[in-house]
Formats: sequence, C-alpha cells, structure tokens
Amino acid sequence: IETKLPKVGTTIFTVMSQLAVQHNAVNLGQGFPDFDGPQSLRDALAEAMNSGRNQYAPMTGIPKLREQIAQKTERLYGRKVNADTDITVTSGATEAIFAAVAAVVRPGDEVIVLDPCYDCYEPAIDLVGGRAVHVPLSLPDFSVDWQRVKDAITPRTRMIMVNSPHNPSGAVFSAQDLDTLAALTRDTEILVLSDEVYEHIIFDGLPHQSVLRHAELADRSFVVSSFGKTYHCTGWKVGYCVAPRTLSAEFRKVHQYLTFCTFSPAQWAFAHVLEHDPQHYLDLPAFYQEKRDHFRDLLQGSRFQLLPVRGAYFQLVDYSAISDKDDLNFCEWLVREAGVAAIPVSAFYETAPAAKIIRFCFAKNDKTLADAAERLRAL
Amino acid sequence: IETKLPKVGTTIFTVMSQLAVQHNAVNLGQGFPDFDGPQSLRDALAEAMNSGRNQYAPMTGIPKLREQIAQKTERLYGRKVNADTDITVTSGATEAIFAAVAAVVRPGDEVIVLDPCYDCYEPAIDLVGGRAVHVPLSLPDFSVDWQRVKDAITPRTRMIMVNSPHNPSGAVFSAQDLDTLAALTRDTEILVLSDEVYEHIIFDGLPHQSVLRHAELADRSFVVSSFGKTYHCTGWKVGYCVAPRTLSAEFRKVHQYLTFCTFSPAQWAFAHVLEHDPQHYLDLPAFYQEKRDHFRDLLQGSRFQLLPVRGAYFQLVDYSAISDKDDLNFCEWLVREAGVAAIPVSAFYETAPAAKIIRFCFAKNDKTLADAAERLRAL
Ligand SMILES: CSCCC(=O)C(=O)O
Ligand SMILES: CSCCC(=O)C(=O)O
Repeated sequence: IETKLPKVGTTIFTVMSQLAVQHNAVNLGQGFPDFDGPQSLRDALAEAMNSGRNQYAPMTGIPKLREQIAQKTERLYGRKVNADTDITVTSGATEAIFAAVAAVVRPGDEVIVLDPCYDCYEPAIDLVGGRAVHVPLSLPDFSVDWQRVKDAITPRTRMIMVNSPHNPSGAVFSAQDLDTLAALTRDTEILVLSDEVYEHIIFDGLPHQSVLRHAELADRSFVVSSFGKTYHCTGWKVGYCVAPRTLSAEFRKVHQYLTFCTFSPAQWAFAHVLEHDPQHYLDLPAFYQEKRDHFRDLLQGSRFQLLPVRGAYFQLVDYSAISDKDDLNFCEWLVREAGVAAIPVSAFYETAPAAKIIRFCFAKNDKTLADAAERLRAL
Repeated sequence: IETKLPKVGTTIFTVMSQLAVQHNAVNLGQGFPDFDGPQSLRDALAEAMNSGRNQYAPMTGIPKLREQIAQKTERLYGRKVNADTDITVTSGATEAIFAAVAAVVRPGDEVIVLDPCYDCYEPAIDLVGGRAVHVPLSLPDFSVDWQRVKDAITPRTRMIMVNSPHNPSGAVFSAQDLDTLAALTRDTEILVLSDEVYEHIIFDGLPHQSVLRHAELADRSFVVSSFGKTYHCTGWKVGYCVAPRTLSAEFRKVHQYLTFCTFSPAQWAFAHVLEHDPQHYLDLPAFYQEKRDHFRDLLQGSRFQLLPVRGAYFQLVDYSAISDKDDLNFCEWLVREAGVAAIPVSAFYETAPAAKIIRFCFAKNDKTLADAAERLRAL
C-alpha cells in the first residue's frame, strides 16, 4: 500500500521513550511530568464516574466545563467569550489542532508554521491537502522574525500557526508580537491558530501574551489549550478550542466527526478543579520556575551550555563542547551511553540549522532531575 | 467564512437529545444506556488513576489492553492478530473510522457506503477529498443487495464501509455476506472498513459474523470496535482498530496526529475487565435480548408496527398508522406531544425512501421503557 503520508514515521517522542525503557535511562525526552496533579482532581473524576456521568457528553463539552473556561478566559485575558458558542472541548490539544486545520484549510491552501514547531502541525495540513510553509524562528533566542513571516505570505495563505510559550524553546510572545501579527493579518483572509498549551507555565514574572488578550487578533483566531500540562496529567487528553462563533461553528463540524465528544468524567473533574482550585494554575509559574532553576543549577557542572527558558517545561542545551554528532545521533548516543533520554531539536524542523541543540524535559521530581544531572555531569 | 462541509449541520443525536431535555421527554433517541457498566470497571479506573497511570499512554494503546483485544479476537473470531502491529487503541470508534478513511482515501477516491448508515461516515470521506457513493440496503429487512454494490464499483472505488450488527436497523450479516464481499473485492485495490461496535449485542442465538472470521477479507479490512456499547459507558470513548500490519501502519500515521493517544486510566480499566470479566460481554446478548423482547411486548398495545431486530439496541417502528408526517416532523411532534424522543431514520440516508420509520433505543431501564411505552400506547 502506497502511503499518503510519506514524511511521517514514528514520532520522535515514541522513539525516545522506547529507547529510554530499553536502556533503563532517565527519561527527559517526551514532555510529561513524573508526578501527579492534585488529588482533588482524581477524586472529582471518581465522584463523577460513580454518580452516573458515564454516557456521551454533549458534542461541544459539558456546559459546566465550558462555563469555567469562559470565566477563566475573561478573568485572565480580559476576553468575554460565549460558553455556548465559542468554546469546544476536545480529546486533547492535538485533536483541537487537527480540527481547526481541517475546518478551514482547503486543498492548495498554505499554512505558515514557525520552525521549530510541534510535530503534529504539518501532518494535519497535509491530510487535508494544504501545504505547510516553514519559516524559521531566529536564533539564538527563537524569536519570530515577522518580516520573514510577511515575506512568506501569498494569496494562498490561509492560516498562521503560532505557539507561546514555545515548545521546544521556551520562548514567549511579547505584546508587540501580538500587535505585529494582528497588523500582518489585518484585512486579509488569514486565520490564526494559537497553540497555548503551556499558558500557565511562564517564568520571571512574564505575563502570558495569549492571543485572547488582543481583541482584533482573537476575532480571527482559534486558540487551543489543554489541561494535561496544567494539571500534570498528560494522559487524560482533554483540550479545548476558543474561537469566535463563526469559526467555532466550522470547528465543531469537524470535531463532531473526529471524536464526537470527550471522556465525560474527566470533563466533570476539570470543571470541579477550575471552579474550586484556581490557585493550582496560579501557582504553576513558581512551581515550574523552581524546577527550571534547580535543573539549571544541577547542570552548571556539566559541559552543556544552557539556553534561556522563559516558559514551558523544557531546557534546551547546546552540546557542541561534548560532541560533533548531529542531534539525533547524539540523543541516541546519550540514551545508550549516559542513560538519559532527550529530544533532538531537529525533529521540530523541516530544515534544521547547524546548531547542536537538544531538549530536556524538567517536569520531573527532584530525585529524577538529580539522577539525570549526575549522569550528564559525568560526560 | 465559507464552509468546507456544507452538508453538515448539528447531528440529529444532539438535536433530539436537546429537544428531549427541553420537553422533559423520555429520551429513546441518541443511543446510550441509562444504566452503568460493572462496578469493577470503575474501580479499575480509579485504581489506575490513583496509582500514577496519568501520563501519555503509548500512541498505539497500552500493551496490556492490546494483548487482551488480541486474545479476544482469536478466541471469538479465530483470527490471530499481532498485538504490537495490528491493533491500535483510539478515542472511540468515531476516531478510528475517521483515521481509517483518512489513512487510505485520496482526493477523488470513491467510498461505497450502505444507506441507512451512521452519520460520521460521509464527513470523514468528504474531509479528505473523497466521495461517498450511497447504495441503499433493501427494504423491508435492510439486507445488502450485493449486486447493487457490485454495480457501484468503479476504478476509483477505494473502500467499502459495512456495519453489522447494523445501526439503525439491527440487521446482521450472514456468513454468506462475508463470502460475497470477499468475492467482490478479490483481486482489487478495494479495502473494507467494518464498523462492529455492536459485536456483542446480537440476538436469537445468531453468531456475530465479524469480518475477522473471514481470513481473506480480514487481510484487507480495518475492523473497528469500541467498549462504549459493550460496557455501558458511551461517554468513555475508547475504541480500537484491528487491521493487518501494513494497513495499521498507515492508520497509525493518522491516529498519531489526530489524538496521539487515549485517556490512560480507562485503557487500564478495560484491560482489567477484559481479562477478569469476559463473562460480561458473553452475557450481553441475553441481557439486551430481554430488553428487546420486553420493549416489544410493551409496544404491542400501540399503533406502531415493529420491525424485526437481530442485533444492536434499537427498535425500528413504522408509524404510518399514526401519522403521515415525514419522519423528522413526526419525531419533533412525538417529543413535544407524546414526550418521547426518537431518531428519524431518514437522518441515516442520503436519499431516504418513502417509508415512515423511526428508531427507538431500548438500552434503558425497565422503568424508562415502561414510561415511554405508556406514552406511546396513548397515541
Ligand atoms: C504527544 S507526545 C509529545 C509530548 C510533548 O508535548 C512534547 O514532548 O513535546
Ligand atoms: C455519538 S451520538 C450517537 C450515538 C449512536 O451511536 C446512535 O444513536 O446511533
């Protein structure tokens, strides 16, 4: 059988997690915490499940959860959204990204993605017959060169995909970035897809510049987030999309035939914790900043050069003082020889730059980080 | 914004469920039970969740669940499948159907669907640029007229979608149906997608003629099932696809970018009940046959004419003795005036026949069925 997706292989996350198991390595590759979220979350799920919330949720998500998301959106980003018409609960952010792309991108349409970017963007575009146009972020700080984005726009451009806090680099948008993106797309048919799954993981007192803060931009954007990163449960797969009514209507047409609806008891559980424990996500910047700082301290004695991290839970490091292997080979070597799994940053690129950079996930217990750092310092 | 899916509106299931709430009606529309599955299932989920199974599952599903599915497949249908390469766990059967279609159908390809059919088939085909070719099942028994299927095959035919036990009619395949389908697709490039979500709900001692029983056919089929119907938890959204290695490889390329993976604790829970309580699904035919027979008895005093039901949990009825409205209007009238929600069968058709038939779901407690039947007998 001839493949429809010749570029797609096993994701690097799966590859590295399997190698980690195989070599009994500390897994700082795939982005997930090795600790759980609040007990209240699991209790609320059990409560929902044991009180009969086990049948189909509404296709758009349970009203109580959409209401809580709407309140948070207004409270944090000053954007009034209609819980009935503008919010759709999905089976993780991945589904939301696919649905948004499939809802509006037509065969031949171009979608601008900023490299390095998460690996599900391009296959979604490909599967509906669109074409990803890759614009690299500027090194060394992974900022957007908006002039290059502007130069990449053509009459076929249908969408620009952005991501802040940024995976893998931890770069974050400034208010100026939003203004520039708004100006670039003003009076065009270009829509924006903003992947904000790390919205609550941002450091040094920086505000999360959600697209939802920018009224003009939000009017033409799909804003995607998820609870997996925020509540330390990446395996629960509940995400959502906030978009103006007309865009949400198209989004829902796809969502209703992709998955129809999402695991009901978890929706009740997230509605519960959003209502009763907003402090959890308000504390998240400090929680992860401590981990970031701790991990960076631990790596001081190593030969890795640490790049700055403004958000998300990944530490990029330059390993050029250690090896001149390419980053995939270096990661394979590292998991085998040092017993630490990482992710090669080239996996997030169509055309990777020459830089020798890999990504460690620091969403880990102190003990895990110490164990990994010890191995890494020994190199 | 111009829609990409002009045919898609709100699904009839959502429409009727909303009307049911609005009119305080007995909801026999959308197909879901009003009772829960075994307590052991919920306990196993809680156990998984409280012992740290909350991060990403493997993209293909947890090995233990795939192993249990493989064992069941061999035990029930005599088909040896490789748990590693041939089974993929999905976020419900809906995701599996979408992924299978998106994996192999290319722009311009034709997919034969047998009307009446479930409403997610055609949008999946449309979204990847394919074209659904509708072949009606033969009335009054909703059997497949294979000659008509044969006549619908063209050089562009890529897939035939089948569904047994059949929603909405409850018709089931015979071994002869499988043979004929195998003969029709022999020496062609045509693949089969078999939706078998009601595999364990089949009556009168009939065996479920899974495509997996037919070695030749299974070699070119995606067989989709789910746990929602079997374990009375339609809101849990865990399904799976069984397909030969090469087809599964293409399936997984799409799945990994649609949802990546599925709610982990539920995967552990289903692995547990499949291993420790296979009796649950072995008892299901008797369990639902009793409901079928009970509901049919209750409707004896009504003016509805009952069609035969061989599988699934829906009763089709002819209402022509009561009204000459079309079925959508009749359902709207019924929910308002009689306080019972049903589904118009025309919703499952591209071009509905003149028949006046609606669908009731009998996966309900005796009290619910009695309450509905009392209202229906009063007409
Ligand atoms: C879906 S596996 C990848 C998880 C993740 O977000 C990452 O590691 O970047
Ligand atoms: C996803 S809602 C529809 C449920 C169902 O299977 C049906 O009612 O036919």
